[in-house]
Amino acid sequence: MVDQTAELDRVFQALADPGRRHMLDRLSRGPASVSELAKPLAISLAASLQHVQVLEASGLVSSRKVGRTRICAIDATVLRSAEQWISARRSSWERRLDRLGEYLAETADAAESD
Amino acid sequence: MVDQTAELDRVFQALADPGRRHMLDRLSRGPASVSELAKPLAISLAASLQHVQVLEASGLVSSRKVGRTRICAIDATVLRSAEQWISARRSSWERRLDRLGEYLAETADAAESD
Repeated sequence: MVDQTAELDRVFQALADPGRRHMLDRLSRGPASVSELAKPLAISLAASLQHVQVLEASGLVSSRKVGRTRICAIDATVLRSAEQWISARRSSWERRLDRLGEYLAETADAAESD
Repeated sequence: MVDQTAELDRVFQALADPGRRHMLDRLSRGPASVSELAKPLAISLAASLQHVQVLEASGLVSSRKVGRTRICAIDATVLRSAEQWISARRSSWERRLDRLGEYLAETADAAESD
């Protein structure tokens, strides 16, 4: 529980930056090197590496060295756990609204048949 | 596009705190006052109000005064847009893995029939 809490802290923190979201968007289409990730953002290689490190610490991305190049790839498991956290709260709230709607409809029916 | 980027920055930033996630979890079961949200977290009313303000600025929560009490409720639209951002990247990545799997299977079939 504590671990999952700390993981979600890091995941949502990693997602809170537009540059890192841009990188994840690129990586969702396939693995890429740190310099490929830097290019469209017009940032230095050092700044790109820093973003990649935040993404790796969150578990959203893993990387490996191929010769002198660091290749990054998405880890869908962590992405899925963040998605599920949000989805569970959204559906809980929507079910509540549905029940409220049914209750109001029943109350209206009861009032009509009085 | 710029607006949605800034909105997502604020939403993921708001979600990156365990106390605020706890509040959203509580609110997913129905509206609550700022002090009801503070109680299980064992934080002051001022600290609770600060968290609520971050949640409101992100659009995840809206609040209204009822007499002297501030009642908070979830806004599912914003929750859904964060969920969809993640979900689109996850499914793009998973589709890519599926295509890779199909390609490898076809290559193996072709090798077998050689």
